[in-house]
Amino acid sequence: MVVPAPELPARVRIHEVGARDGLQNEKAVVPTEVKAEFVRRLADAGLTTIEATSFVRPEWVPQLADAERLFPLVREVSGVELPVLVPNQRGLERALALGADRIAVFASATETFAKANLNRTLDESLALFEPVVRRAKDAGAWVRGYVSMCFGDPWEGAVPLPQVVRVCTALRDMGCDELSLGDTIGVATPGQVRQLLTALNADGVTTATLAVHFHDTYGQALANTYAALEHGVSTVDASAGGLGGCPYAKSATGNLATEDLLWMLRGLGIETGVDLSRLVATSAWMAGRLGRPSPSRTVRALSPKEQ
Amino acid sequence: MVVPAPELPARVRIHEVGARDGLQNEKAVVPTEVKAEFVRRLADAGLTTIEATSFVRPEWVPQLADAERLFPLVREVSGVELPVLVPNQRGLERALALGADRIAVFASATETFAKANLNRTLDESLALFEPVVRRAKDAGAWVRGYVSMCFGDPWEGAVPLPQVVRVCTALRDMGCDELSLGDTIGVATPGQVRQLLTALNADGVTTATLAVHFHDTYGQALANTYAALEHGVSTVDASAGGLGGCPYAKSATGNLATEDLLWMLRGLGIETGVDLSRLVATSAWMAGRLGRPSPSRTVRALSPKEQ
Repeated sequence: MVVPAPELPARVRIHEVGARDGLQNEKAVVPTEVKAEFVRRLADAGLTTIEATSFVRPEWVPQLADAERLFPLVREVSGVELPVLVPNQRGLERALALGADRIAVFASATETFAKANLNRTLDESLALFEPVVRRAKDAGAWVRGYVSMCFGDPWEGAVPLPQVVRVCTALRDMGCDELSLGDTIGVATPGQVRQLLTALNADGVTTATLAVHFHDTYGQALANTYAALEHGVSTVDASAGGLGGCPYAKSATGNLATEDLLWMLRGLGIETGVDLSRLVATSAWMAGRLGRPSPSRTVRALSPKEQ
Repeated sequence: MVVPAPELPARVRIHEVGARDGLQNEKAVVPTEVKAEFVRRLADAGLTTIEATSFVRPEWVPQLADAERLFPLVREVSGVELPVLVPNQRGLERALALGADRIAVFASATETFAKANLNRTLDESLALFEPVVRRAKDAGAWVRGYVSMCFGDPWEGAVPLPQVVRVCTALRDMGCDELSLGDTIGVATPGQVRQLLTALNADGVTTATLAVHFHDTYGQALANTYAALEHGVSTVDASAGGLGGCPYAKSATGNLATEDLLWMLRGLGIETGVDLSRLVATSAWMAGRLGRPSPSRTVRALSPKEQ
């Protein structure tokens, strides 16, 4: 039943991260051809932005070590944008050489995560990204900046708002076209979401350039998304079938499931262009490949049989 | 991290339904002494309203066939209200005889569910409840009216809003002190929630007399709860550990988990009086008794070891 709520966006673009953020955090390493099929099926379900892979050093993330083989298999899929993550200049060159025209960099809002993830201070990590973003822009690419740990950090706990805003504005000033505000450990609640969005607007970062990226570790992802929609956010990251564990929490508590998001958006009359049945079928298929049930409640409820 | 959102209630009363709605829908039949221990632990965690059991005919709901033995074991627990469900006059007399002073009746917003649940038309079922509510009020009891299938019905699909409002106002007119608006099959989205609350207010049903009761079949329960809080609702039903399957959906997709709700309320700075750690420990203990992991994401994330 469709009942719109006032003042929500008429249309939301789902930035599908299952093939990258999802599979990167799954224990299993999925064969390249299965990944390619996954991306094709996601596109067939109507998703228009599908983050395809990450050009990290293969030994860092074995799950995505096949980026060079995967990307050529999917880059001709029609009607979709296929952003890829790059950790540094070398990863960027690998991606550009294969024809990638949507690039994402992955920054942290906290010192400790910058240290853990990149072995650098926050400022050093931003200095590292600056030439990467510039080179990507010079090559004509669209650039997304991920900002992880925006709402909490497993070591530091609460993250000071001015620090998050500083990282966001730095990425914006480098030339990022879009920022994805990440709740990497899933601790945020709606008041925090509103507070950060308001603070970013006050510093001149417009809502149209912002995406939200929630993890469902504590079951908060969809409520936080709703709060973001109320603020006017119209780009939402989600992972088909809820793929992607989180190293700081047990079992199936990874990304917001695209299907659960889609159920809400459909009910609110918000256009996405995505076909729920096809997406559920795709996630049920992928769950079979991974050998475990999908953590998405919508996938479980709508799948024809117990996975 | 606590960040309030404007215009939300300062305090929320959680109406804990795990021991009744939760266990009623679990496959396993839990021993009476374990149920009593569960209620005591819930009270110890700070919950002040714990629905204890249902005085249905034992052959209808074998899981709750021990109401007569259970209620005396818990009625002296201090600091808590212990509402009990009664299906009819006979169940009410059984409950009153044991000293119950908080009574709940379970109505349906749809013809087909009234038929399936009570083998009566909607009007016949309301006529059945009228003397039950009157007798309970005459006996000095506080009465809650559950209205199930407010947002969708497995047979009828969408439920006409005027019909839901009619059932609610009928229960109010009988003398119910509180109405619990149930999304029994978990299909609602936030626009529907706002629409129903607004319609009820327009018919003179005040928000202070309303509770919301969401099932998480499609992962929507917490987002819907947030929308209800924004409307001013300050009584929320939830089930410790997310206990309670749903006959129309598979596996662990029952009630909103009290812990997931509590994580959000804590983050929003909304008082509940409930201690999250104690509640998680209780749900982890109960999951052990039931022999399956809790479906609550917060319970999974905070439990000391894999259940």
